[in-house]
Amino acid sequence: MPGITGRTRLYVIVADPIAQVKAPELLRPIFAEAGHDGVCVPLHVMEADLPAMVAALRQARNLGGIVVTVPHKEAMARLCDALTPAAVEAGAVNVVRRDPDGTLTGAMFDGEGFVAGLAAAGHGVAGKRVFIAGAGGAAAGIAFALARHGAAAITLSNRTVGKAQALAARVAARFPDCAVAAGGGGPRGYDLAVNTTSLGLRPDDALPIDMTAMAPPTVVVEIIMQPADTAFLQAARALGCATHPGRPMLDQQIRLIARFIGAIG
Amino acid sequence: MPGITGRTRLYVIVADPIAQVKAPELLRPIFAEAGHDGVCVPLHVMEADLPAMVAALRQARNLGGIVVTVPHKEAMARLCDALTPAAVEAGAVNVVRRDPDGTLTGAMFDGEGFVAGLAAAGHGVAGKRVFIAGAGGAAAGIAFALARHGAAAITLSNRTVGKAQALAARVAARFPDCAVAAGGGGPRGYDLAVNTTSLGLRPDDALPIDMTAMAPPTVVVEIIMQPADTAFLQAARALGCATHPGRPMLDQQIRLIARFIGAIG
Repeated sequence: MPGITGRTRLYVIVADPIAQVKAPELLRPIFAEAGHDGVCVPLHVMEADLPAMVAALRQARNLGGIVVTVPHKEAMARLCDALTPAAVEAGAVNVVRRDPDGTLTGAMFDGEGFVAGLAAAGHGVAGKRVFIAGAGGAAAGIAFALARHGAAAITLSNRTVGKAQALAARVAARFPDCAVAAGGGGPRGYDLAVNTTSLGLRPDDALPIDMTAMAPPTVVVEIIMQPADTAFLQAARALGCATHPGRPMLDQQIRLIARFIGAIG
Repeated sequence: MPGITGRTRLYVIVADPIAQVKAPELLRPIFAEAGHDGVCVPLHVMEADLPAMVAALRQARNLGGIVVTVPHKEAMARLCDALTPAAVEAGAVNVVRRDPDGTLTGAMFDGEGFVAGLAAAGHGVAGKRVFIAGAGGAAAGIAFALARHGAAAITLSNRTVGKAQALAARVAARFPDCAVAAGGGGPRGYDLAVNTTSLGLRPDDALPIDMTAMAPPTVVVEIIMQPADTAFLQAARALGCATHPGRPMLDQQIRLIARFIGAIG
């Protein structure tokens, strides 16, 4: 690959924790193939520090964009000057383009990447009943995309119930044909059970979903990529459930991200 | 070289303009040779934006350090929590180490790199009379190092004369055996004539020194690296003077920088 010089366009991915991020590795061959002199590097930013970091990065003249992951997707949406429709729906962004005048435009490709990743593995979502753990930015992007692609029902389970109720109301308002509700308990009778929380990133995390009622034919889906095989996926396999890991969501959307930040045509 | 991952330690070089910076290319093989998983990327920061950028970078947990060049060397010294003795002398830094608790310690290797670069090209400085254009951070680092290595006399020429006088007084106080003064005019009768200003970075810049009185045996020295052959060096050659380009100063100090930021042992 070509080396990094003073002329290389800079992209960062902001996250906490940072070690698991994949964007630097995934964007590199895409930039190279497109002949784009750019590099994406990890930037470990804590939640409290995001506004000041974004204010500073906004003024960095050679910065092309910011890839955004846990826990910054929702806070970053509030720091952008403009949002794409999918980002407005999700109330969250996973990439921000920096225009030459410093304008920051946020987009959200998690949902489309998630549905495309499932489809590539043979798991269509049309007509399906989906249980989602979490009600944050990732859950929002995924819930809207599932509804857009014809999911029959979505249940959002979140520690803070009000947050799940608020997201359910927003998705239902936009997609009245999808039965969206906030709900607790285990995912009995669902086609898909999805973890969108950050539980599983750290070795000592609790499982994101009560596994008592988990059983086939529910397909258990993770969006965490590192570790590739989380305790949640392992527990699901032990119960005989098919599983789908976190990586395909990113693989499917990385080109959308590269195009949005102007790195490829 | 190994790819950049979420575990890669991040270093930036801050500058304005940015395209000419060489640290990313020079640090890469040094990191690789040492087996250090790190990357240095260019970060284009304007003068007014430096304090906010440094405040943000201080909180970036995977940031190992900041390489500093024009026009930030003096301002960055004021933003550090601690300075090495050479940085205190120079009132300027060209690299900042970020410790895990966010403490920023600034160092200045320009002067030692400059003298080592001249020595490697056969130009000793002991007993020499040196004319320096500029009185900023680079001039300070170079003037103190020249005096430390036995230069007989140093004249500092700067648009703002008071700044040259202040620097001359500081160097003279520290090295009473060196005749240091602020002065204008051309460099008649000097062994070395050095440009430490940023004039020459941009194609339409004026020459940094009045060439009317320039003649051999004065050796004309540049610290600008890009372009490698500045209009100043070209004008000096046209007058028959020997020249010394900007690059050796950086080549000589890049390992000192890598060691200071903890990238190599």
